[in-house]
Amino acid sequence: MGLFTKDIKSMDDLFLHTLQDIYYAENKILKALPDMIDAASDAQLKQGLTTHLAETEDHVGRLDEVFKLLGQEPKSVKCPAIDGIVEEADEVTGEVADKDVLDAAIIAAGQAVEHYEITRYGSLIAWAGQLGRNDVARILEQTLVEEKAADKKLTSIAESKVNLRAAS
Amino acid sequence: MGLFTKDIKSMDDLFLHTLQDIYYAENKILKALPDMIDAASDAQLKQGLTTHLAETEDHVGRLDEVFKLLGQEPKSVKCPAIDGIVEEADEVTGEVADKDVLDAAIIAAGQAVEHYEITRYGSLIAWAGQLGRNDVARILEQTLVEEKAADKKLTSIAESKVNLRAAS
Repeated sequence: MGLFTKDIKSMDDLFLHTLQDIYYAENKILKALPDMIDAASDAQLKQGLTTHLAETEDHVGRLDEVFKLLGQEPKSVKCPAIDGIVEEADEVTGEVADKDVLDAAIIAAGQAVEHYEITRYGSLIAWAGQLGRNDVARILEQTLVEEKAADKKLTSIAESKVNLRAAS
Repeated sequence: MGLFTKDIKSMDDLFLHTLQDIYYAENKILKALPDMIDAASDAQLKQGLTTHLAETEDHVGRLDEVFKLLGQEPKSVKCPAIDGIVEEADEVTGEVADKDVLDAAIIAAGQAVEHYEITRYGSLIAWAGQLGRNDVARILEQTLVEEKAADKKLTSIAESKVNLRAAS
């Protein structure tokens, strides 16, 4: 994007920019998840994050497929939002002394990441449909379903035991 | 928070830290919304954002009330996540040349903000309940309901007309 020009002239441009943004975000999450897995104590939380790491690899693969369908090279644009969300996760989890409280903090950090992805994929799917690219919308919908499931799973782990242990 | 010490030792500490984080975020959103209202073209979008600005003032007031119930002075901690989300909103909307596409971009940016708040209030409400503070949970729940309604309203404005105009 140019520094002084308005480079987003159409909905196609906005779609592509947001696709490049979530491509950056997914790749950033791929790098951040292993540290969260290492830091987690609860076995089910570790397992849930590990499963989501594998899913995140699939999400990057699906984005590659979408770029191809659109005749574009896969490309990232810097995404200050995910940078901020991951920076905050690092800061907060680095401050936590107790391992049960740390699990609660990791879950909250993971859910902030999921919600960012849910909102971005939601916009992309709506826009793809409006642009007549239901093929693209269907691919992104598979990822959105997995992001929502990952968020629900984290809620369930928090509510069934982690919050209880952390508060005791 | 100390630079080299682990200052979050209990769930109470994690709760308070996250409360200070969302206090920073709500105040940042209060400052960011007027520019989004100015930039929006669709009358219903302008109106929806204006209503949400008034709600955001209430959200800050409710946080003040929660700090008071906990015997704490209202205080912010820097929240890199909301800083990144707002920075990205400014960058993207600054790049958009067409007013209908700009409305679509403003809606997406607003929904990223809403989703950040939804995830943070969700964690805070769960933690307050676990800590035996249902009085606090009930206050925060009122805000969460409004954040979710604001997100749905933006989806409805996007799907009923803005995306259609932006893609045409």
